[in-house]
Amino acid sequence: MDYWCELAWLPPGEVVSGVLVTVDGSRISAITPETADPPPGAVVLRGLTTPGFANTHSHAFHRALRGRTQADRGTFWTWREQMYGVAARLDPDSYLALARATFAEMALAGVTCVGEFHYLHHAADGKPYDDPNVMGHALITAAREAGLRITLLDACYLTGGIGTALVGTQRQFGDGDAVRWAARAEDLAKAYRKTPEVEVGAAIHSVRAVPPEQMTVVVEFAHQQASPVHAHVSEQRRENEACVEAYSATPVQLLHDRGALGPRATAVHATHLSNVDIALLSGSTTHVCMCPTTERDLADGIGPARALLDAGSPVTIGTDSQAVIDVFEELRAIELDERLATGKRGHWQARELLNVATAAGHASLGFPDAGFLVPGAWADLVSIRLDSVRTAGASKPTAVESAVFAASAADVHSVVSGGRRIVAEGRHMLGDVGGMLADSIGALHE
Amino acid sequence: MDYWCELAWLPPGEVVSGVLVTVDGSRISAITPETADPPPGAVVLRGLTTPGFANTHSHAFHRALRGRTQADRGTFWTWREQMYGVAARLDPDSYLALARATFAEMALAGVTCVGEFHYLHHAADGKPYDDPNVMGHALITAAREAGLRITLLDACYLTGGIGTALVGTQRQFGDGDAVRWAARAEDLAKAYRKTPEVEVGAAIHSVRAVPPEQMTVVVEFAHQQASPVHAHVSEQRRENEACVEAYSATPVQLLHDRGALGPRATAVHATHLSNVDIALLSGSTTHVCMCPTTERDLADGIGPARALLDAGSPVTIGTDSQAVIDVFEELRAIELDERLATGKRGHWQARELLNVATAAGHASLGFPDAGFLVPGAWADLVSIRLDSVRTAGASKPTAVESAVFAASAADVHSVVSGGRRIVAEGRHMLGDVGGMLADSIGALHE
Repeated sequence: MDYWCELAWLPPGEVVSGVLVTVDGSRISAITPETADPPPGAVVLRGLTTPGFANTHSHAFHRALRGRTQADRGTFWTWREQMYGVAARLDPDSYLALARATFAEMALAGVTCVGEFHYLHHAADGKPYDDPNVMGHALITAAREAGLRITLLDACYLTGGIGTALVGTQRQFGDGDAVRWAARAEDLAKAYRKTPEVEVGAAIHSVRAVPPEQMTVVVEFAHQQASPVHAHVSEQRRENEACVEAYSATPVQLLHDRGALGPRATAVHATHLSNVDIALLSGSTTHVCMCPTTERDLADGIGPARALLDAGSPVTIGTDSQAVIDVFEELRAIELDERLATGKRGHWQARELLNVATAAGHASLGFPDAGFLVPGAWADLVSIRLDSVRTAGASKPTAVESAVFAASAADVHSVVSGGRRIVAEGRHMLGDVGGMLADSIGALHE
Repeated sequence: MDYWCELAWLPPGEVVSGVLVTVDGSRISAITPETADPPPGAVVLRGLTTPGFANTHSHAFHRALRGRTQADRGTFWTWREQMYGVAARLDPDSYLALARATFAEMALAGVTCVGEFHYLHHAADGKPYDDPNVMGHALITAAREAGLRITLLDACYLTGGIGTALVGTQRQFGDGDAVRWAARAEDLAKAYRKTPEVEVGAAIHSVRAVPPEQMTVVVEFAHQQASPVHAHVSEQRRENEACVEAYSATPVQLLHDRGALGPRATAVHATHLSNVDIALLSGSTTHVCMCPTTERDLADGIGPARALLDAGSPVTIGTDSQAVIDVFEELRAIELDERLATGKRGHWQARELLNVATAAGHASLGFPDAGFLVPGAWADLVSIRLDSVRTAGASKPTAVESAVFAASAADVHSVVSGGRRIVAEGRHMLGDVGGMLADSIGALHE
């Protein structure tokens, strides 16, 4: 299949007119710039075409909370209580429906690969399902049906806080210990070993939820599988304080001590970091996933994204709590929030932010061969309207700036994911995604 | 004309099902709640219907800069140089075309009244046009053709900085002194005295641009006209420092000393305020216009919106530099940026934010009889989809939360402005607004 792009963003970061992208199966087989006119039979992609976006941190079920948690005051911790309420009502069928709709919403926003940080393993009373991986399978099925690749980051979640047992809804999350977690995760990984669109990775939920000696088991699993390993890190000051009190180490130091950092690792949030934390993350080339719209929503704070990049950590983005699903909004928020924190403009260039959503993101999900338009890479193409009321007036030299700083998810008109056209003319191949969301969310709140 | 609303937001802030709004000319003549089914002939408005939005601070021509200023690093002050470049290229015809398209974009975002802070009075060399108000007329015509009411805030702009003459492009802005400014503004006001959809108000550009003794003349004009008077206030720390150095007073203190504060006054930005400034603004019931997406873009900082409201200042929003035009994004940014600044959620309830965009905003523009759905008020209705991928899953009790925290401008599907349906099914009555924007902006950058 041939796709002719009116404008395409090609390595090392140039906007080029008239680019023919030839796709063979799931991969790009050729890139032909300076193709003035669309050849017969080619699909014409107007506007700006970029590589597909990687959403490296998602909790699909949080989509059911959107809007509904805003009626209350309070903190991250009171928000978490509402989140637990939805978790307790999910089963494999309802989670499949909700996640499929949520992943389809992501597809409409240009996401072609999602990192699903998964800890809803068991039934509401904590009992494993007959197939203890049925919830993980549901998430993977949901992503594939919505047309996304998925890295299922199977989370080890053992304690409710440092030295505290899991209680109530939290029992859904636990496997008892990391060895039992690893046995279950290994079964899941085995099931997808021959499915190139699915990667099973590991996650250390947080220093709150995984004692240091158990972390070692998770890290060992990730090494054996050569898989990504993600962890929530320093989202909240209270988490840092408890960690230092218990272990005389920050969360980053603890992860470093247990060998969890490195090029296959991703620290999610990384909001409240010391200079030593920044040195440990960047010195180990650990990815850092910023979730700016969630961090705004949960009043987390503004992480030192630019300092991390400068020191050597690839930066990625995640929609996390699904407060909104808009990759452009996440990207520009990285820059705009740094502007608010410093009183200066221009920390991030638009092309650097686009790299956050593409090459850096896919690499953190274990797909280093995605996120750029070159022969051999995954055939992921996102096409962004430059003629909507938001983007009209864009010029070729600043088309990336217009997309990153002014576009919204509603401006994505076409998405090709792994060679498959999953969005055309702004519509998802599954049809009425709004209806799917309303039905699956409504059923949970009845 | 009858409009039947699936859900409507009625005073004092309740979401009600099945509301019939009867419109007679430009006004609402009746509100009939609990109308289960749409009567024959009524226009059916699905989703949530709210009063029209007031955009209380706009510089229409900044729309031509969107995206294009993001390629550079720098500060507010380097951004201003680019803005001057566009200003120098505008004439009455090109400004009419650009402003009409920009106001139509606002209409698509639910705006039914705009406060246009206007200082591009003269030709690029500083010479008045044959009709010295031709640019003001162009803006008013543009708004009316796009279907909006307009408050043309004619700005007095006399100096390039404290004690500094206007130079270069700035000469377009100046009338020599406030007496000559007032004579011109009075002519403009006279021309629209019998046009209820048009209000001509006054603006003191800033303490940089209007010496204190000249402010008095502007204030006197506003009192005589009983019109709104707006001023840029404390957007930048440097502005505050220069003001204190020259006058031993903050910008707010200076405006207070000159009688510029009060219920018809609006302080725009109000980012860097002392406790005394907050007391003077709120004690005088001065409106405060926050422009959060511009303040993020220009690295201005986060103003004390909640403290101002609590102390007695009605808060409004403006799209200012048109970095984006999305009222929902402005509203939630007020809350989300306060979350980032404080580490706490829930400073603003969604209904309070909706009041910012409606009743408070229209009042600051001199239309106190707009912004709520009651008989006698201006017939302004904005209908927001609750079935898009962004808003699907909303519930009636939290419909306002879903709109404010999750909707985007793309979710506005119908707008009635002063009794006239200007947006239906997401399309503006003028047709292809993206094309209008591209043409008018392209012509300026050729």
